[in-house]
Amino acid sequence: MLNKKFILNTLGLILVFESLFMLLSAGVSLFYGDFDVEALLISFAITFSVGGLCWALNRKVEKDMLKRESFIIVTLVWVVMSIFGSLPYIFSGTIPGFTDAFFETISGFTTTGASIVNDIEALPHGILFWRSITHLIGGMGIIVLAVAILPFFGFGGMQLYSAEAAGVTNDKLHPRITKTAKSLWGIYVVLILSETAFLMFGGMPLFDALCHSFGTIASGGFSTKNASIAEYSPYIQYVIIVFMIFAGTNFALFFFVWKGNWKKLTKNAEFKVFLSVILVVSLCIGTTLFFHTNQTFEKSFRDALFQVTSTITSTGFVTADYTAWHPYLTFVIFGLMFSGACVGSTSGGIKLFRHMILVKNIKIEFKRMSHPNAVIPLKIGKNMVSHEVIYKVLAFLVLYMAIFCVGTLLMTIVGLDMDSAFGAVATSMGGIGPGLGVVGPMNNFYAIPEAGKWILSVLMLLGRLELFSVLILFAPGFWKNN
Amino acid sequence: MLNKKFILNTLGLILVFESLFMLLSAGVSLFYGDFDVEALLISFAITFSVGGLCWALNRKVEKDMLKRESFIIVTLVWVVMSIFGSLPYIFSGTIPGFTDAFFETISGFTTTGASIVNDIEALPHGILFWRSITHLIGGMGIIVLAVAILPFFGFGGMQLYSAEAAGVTNDKLHPRITKTAKSLWGIYVVLILSETAFLMFGGMPLFDALCHSFGTIASGGFSTKNASIAEYSPYIQYVIIVFMIFAGTNFALFFFVWKGNWKKLTKNAEFKVFLSVILVVSLCIGTTLFFHTNQTFEKSFRDALFQVTSTITSTGFVTADYTAWHPYLTFVIFGLMFSGACVGSTSGGIKLFRHMILVKNIKIEFKRMSHPNAVIPLKIGKNMVSHEVIYKVLAFLVLYMAIFCVGTLLMTIVGLDMDSAFGAVATSMGGIGPGLGVVGPMNNFYAIPEAGKWILSVLMLLGRLELFSVLILFAPGFWKNN
Repeated sequence: MLNKKFILNTLGLILVFESLFMLLSAGVSLFYGDFDVEALLISFAITFSVGGLCWALNRKVEKDMLKRESFIIVTLVWVVMSIFGSLPYIFSGTIPGFTDAFFETISGFTTTGASIVNDIEALPHGILFWRSITHLIGGMGIIVLAVAILPFFGFGGMQLYSAEAAGVTNDKLHPRITKTAKSLWGIYVVLILSETAFLMFGGMPLFDALCHSFGTIASGGFSTKNASIAEYSPYIQYVIIVFMIFAGTNFALFFFVWKGNWKKLTKNAEFKVFLSVILVVSLCIGTTLFFHTNQTFEKSFRDALFQVTSTITSTGFVTADYTAWHPYLTFVIFGLMFSGACVGSTSGGIKLFRHMILVKNIKIEFKRMSHPNAVIPLKIGKNMVSHEVIYKVLAFLVLYMAIFCVGTLLMTIVGLDMDSAFGAVATSMGGIGPGLGVVGPMNNFYAIPEAGKWILSVLMLLGRLELFSVLILFAPGFWKNN
Repeated sequence: MLNKKFILNTLGLILVFESLFMLLSAGVSLFYGDFDVEALLISFAITFSVGGLCWALNRKVEKDMLKRESFIIVTLVWVVMSIFGSLPYIFSGTIPGFTDAFFETISGFTTTGASIVNDIEALPHGILFWRSITHLIGGMGIIVLAVAILPFFGFGGMQLYSAEAAGVTNDKLHPRITKTAKSLWGIYVVLILSETAFLMFGGMPLFDALCHSFGTIASGGFSTKNASIAEYSPYIQYVIIVFMIFAGTNFALFFFVWKGNWKKLTKNAEFKVFLSVILVVSLCIGTTLFFHTNQTFEKSFRDALFQVTSTITSTGFVTADYTAWHPYLTFVIFGLMFSGACVGSTSGGIKLFRHMILVKNIKIEFKRMSHPNAVIPLKIGKNMVSHEVIYKVLAFLVLYMAIFCVGTLLMTIVGLDMDSAFGAVATSMGGIGPGLGVVGPMNNFYAIPEAGKWILSVLMLLGRLELFSVLILFAPGFWKNN
């Protein structure tokens, strides 16, 4: 029997948690004397009451965390939070339609950062803050997901680290899920506060600095400005680049650094690949931009570095219109949408660790051709990767590409041209934000037909939850009682 | 030590074989009294002499077929044949440039059918015949490759059939490579002659009927008409559809049918998927075309069926401009470029068997999530697929997509827009012919920059030879002596 009470109890608790952030946003609104206080307070009241009731009425349950219930909760929680999270937009009239409001909210919670808002700067402070808060909450959720929930399901990337990441869930870091999550949340908060300080040092007001820090560290991408980060000085752009890189790093590595164990960071194979890709690709793009435009080399390299970092970490902040670059540079950025950064970070998409396994597997296949009877183990750094993990990674990639194709097909049916459909689907699944064509960095998702917004919402959720944890709910046999 | 004499001896023999077809084309030219007799005769003389010398000077060698030599021969033979095969075009002045002539020839031998000829109908008969003959020879080469060479290397698809296809190389069909190949060549010739008869019955002249049959059964796609098959009557289009389906079927199945064992065909899982995909996709596209155009249902369905069959079998004949269809229909055709038909057929690309394994592997992954300790074997039909084969298939897919991405990037660097680059690379790797955008079905590859033609030539070869057999030549360690 499905433990429905446990599910409702958990969802209720999380809604209460969500509602408190609405209250906080109402406070911000009150401070600025904006018109959206009422809308945020009503949203808070509704979310708090519904959540509180769900929690209170289902308190007396066995707390055994069962796998099936966990799967249901993991998907449901993002959907339910997004439904309630749309209320402030709807009640304030800033985004009147439910489809649009839901899209903006789930884009926030999944830390995608795809927006339907045409004039961001016209939004009142409370709503603007709530919009960035969805990133903050989403990022926190992802950390729990990465370090605790997905390994419990047997996938998601962190367990791929065997020794290294097992260190996170096993005794080396902290033995219990909640403690682990709290440690990493601590790092998360420290990163946000540091970035806020650095941004304010560059002249950004506290409000904007906070919102941009939420957007950076959660690898979200919602800005408070219509021009995104192009609005700001080179100093601020570099600060955001550095913190995007932090956000794309496995948070467990920060924990080790905190404990003085720098080797864990410097010897981490995935982290090295992460930095190398950013550097090499940025240099290539930067040099090309320099030779084909009238920009200085610094500006060319900064634009390249910013867009590469923003895309690979799935943040989605923008300082330059990469769709106006030469087609092959646009294609490189498009390709990076399928990269993702390190596992255990807040970044979305496929992630570098999976790519590393895929590349190694091909190398080994060549060796097997020359030595058919040799047993050649697949190693990442010093760690052997088991057959089960390789299968999972390969199945993940195929599924990712299959969903990408089906998603693109659906978006063309909805009416998008092929480039725009490619971009919209890639950016949604990868959790980035801007895409190509009509959803390029200088446009937004407002003009996408309603059906398309729902399709992309589903894709954002699928990408964020590593596909399998959502899709298993639709697998035959899942709902059968044992 | 590399057995260079064995390599030269084999290549020489194959060049002699090639030269005889040039002589045949010269005969055709003579019959029609065209101006290209001389060019074909000179090409014959050169190819025959070089081949004959290579063969004769290296006769006294150990005939031990070694793996390393085989790998080298398999790739080299297509390159060398294409170099000599360009001579008739160059000498006759019909395609004066070497790049263009080589592109047209390797497109023929790899049975891709991508063309740079602007006015096909202006070509003299001998050259036109030679152009289609490259398909004929290519198709024969592919059969040897599929049934004999690739299984010897341990990949390629046929060996995936374990029981079924092992039946081809083991005692059930014929024990020896040459005998197997000869049996399948017999089927190949019978199919060509049958199609020729059916086409002539529909009013097509012998010359065109032969050329189109070569193009169909080799799944090539070179036509003798500028308008490709749109030139001809519905009857002829249906005949070609049926024979394209035959060309996409595992030739071993024809052998069993010949022996009276129909069950092998009707119970073949891949064949069933092949027919189902064609039928379902054609019905969907046909119905959509019917409702969105003024065409009759018959014409809509016929156009859909023709383009779907032509693309999935990697033939590349054209009766309708699918890039002028609604974007999502174009996307479906683009998607089919990654499909391919059955293994052991003359069709190129990824092939359905691999897709079936990929899909099954994902299904199994979902089962593993619910039952982490269960051992769930992967079966296609009644046959278990081994771990090694699953790895190979997954590595193949990842490599295919990686090469697709790199190829597209290179083509955008060369100057193509993204859609055209996608289309050009997909159609070259899949061995189809027409692509998207500037290389769409109403255009050709003439306007592609020279560098792009070389890139696409390499991609055609890679796709045709199942990637690994070419790329292993560049693997570190391959050229080291044991």
